[in-house]
Amino acid sequence: MPADREEEAASADARHAEKMRKIQAARSTMMATKTREQGLLIVHTGTGKGKTSAALGMVVRAIGHGMKVGVVQFVKGAMATGEKTVFDAFPENVEFKPMGEGFTWDTQDRTRDIASARTAWDEVCRMIADPAYQMVVADELNIVLRYDYLPLDEVLKAFAAKPEMKHVIVTGRNAPDALIEAADLVTEMTMIKHPFRSGVKAQAGIEF
Amino acid sequence: MPADREEEAASADARHAEKMRKIQAARSTMMATKTREQGLLIVHTGTGKGKTSAALGMVVRAIGHGMKVGVVQFVKGAMATGEKTVFDAFPENVEFKPMGEGFTWDTQDRTRDIASARTAWDEVCRMIADPAYQMVVADELNIVLRYDYLPLDEVLKAFAAKPEMKHVIVTGRNAPDALIEAADLVTEMTMIKHPFRSGVKAQAGIEF
Repeated sequence: MPADREEEAASADARHAEKMRKIQAARSTMMATKTREQGLLIVHTGTGKGKTSAALGMVVRAIGHGMKVGVVQFVKGAMATGEKTVFDAFPENVEFKPMGEGFTWDTQDRTRDIASARTAWDEVCRMIADPAYQMVVADELNIVLRYDYLPLDEVLKAFAAKPEMKHVIVTGRNAPDALIEAADLVTEMTMIKHPFRSGVKAQAGIEF
Repeated sequence: MPADREEEAASADARHAEKMRKIQAARSTMMATKTREQGLLIVHTGTGKGKTSAALGMVVRAIGHGMKVGVVQFVKGAMATGEKTVFDAFPENVEFKPMGEGFTWDTQDRTRDIASARTAWDEVCRMIADPAYQMVVADELNIVLRYDYLPLDEVLKAFAAKPEMKHVIVTGRNAPDALIEAADLVTEMTMIKHPFRSGVKAQAGIEF
């Protein structure tokens, strides 16, 4: 490398180190104020993909840290999913319950949907009350709330009364405003581009 | 139930069944046009949480379907993560490589960061080329691109030349426009609410 290029590179490195030092200092100051541990009410909503996947990723992390997690799926159940196979390999850490009977437009039976939502919700309540579980996932609960299959008030009351250190994760599009209000951490997944638009079908490993 | 209430409920059920039947019919028509299978270039970006978690959730699904997945983490590596423990239990299905040396503001050494980005990228290229892998995750690659640790052109060229059936997932905030342009499926994770704001620290199972 010629001497001037070398000097330029050395100066870029120095500027980078200084910038990173400043970011690090700012970050340390910020992190020092974050001292509490707390069970979180987490909501993944929006029309984009990744709401359930991100919850499953958090389950993976929790398993890795030796936590016990309960997962109740309000919509899935009719179809075998990849996640069930994996989580069933960790019976000490995960209780995985697909309790839906398929998408609600496949059943066309409101009374049955309400009954199955109630059974699934009872499971969520049991896991929230049982100190053995440190994390509870209510997958697609928002869809059930959207169709008024469960009273929102009852759900909010149960979350408000949850043990302080317990994490609860709720997924599904159209999260009710009152649930977003009650939550500690809310992420909206927004679709920027979707391959369905160009004729690609749902695929193993991606959609299920 | 009094007779009029019973009638009302029966009518609500009938309306619901009709609505669901219409949704199902529309959905069947749409799904019938989705016939192709194709390896997807998937991007999870945005400033919200869930970008890496959602990729990990997809890895879980892929494992469950017996696929082989390669995961290269460009930033993580200095700290043990929950996901590594779990994926290491499936050595036939997952090759999991945390190849970062911590967040770049912790290293403050641009030359070293560039070298470690290059080593990690070589791994991604190897996994893309090797027919044994059906899915490859380049976790936090966007951060590396943001800092110009790798030439964007080189990365885009490698993705454009990937085998047709291979899924590649890229995560990290600030995805370059040209990568979004090249991708098949792009989700933006948007932060609606974050508990850091109220003094809660990063917790096992949630952030790592």
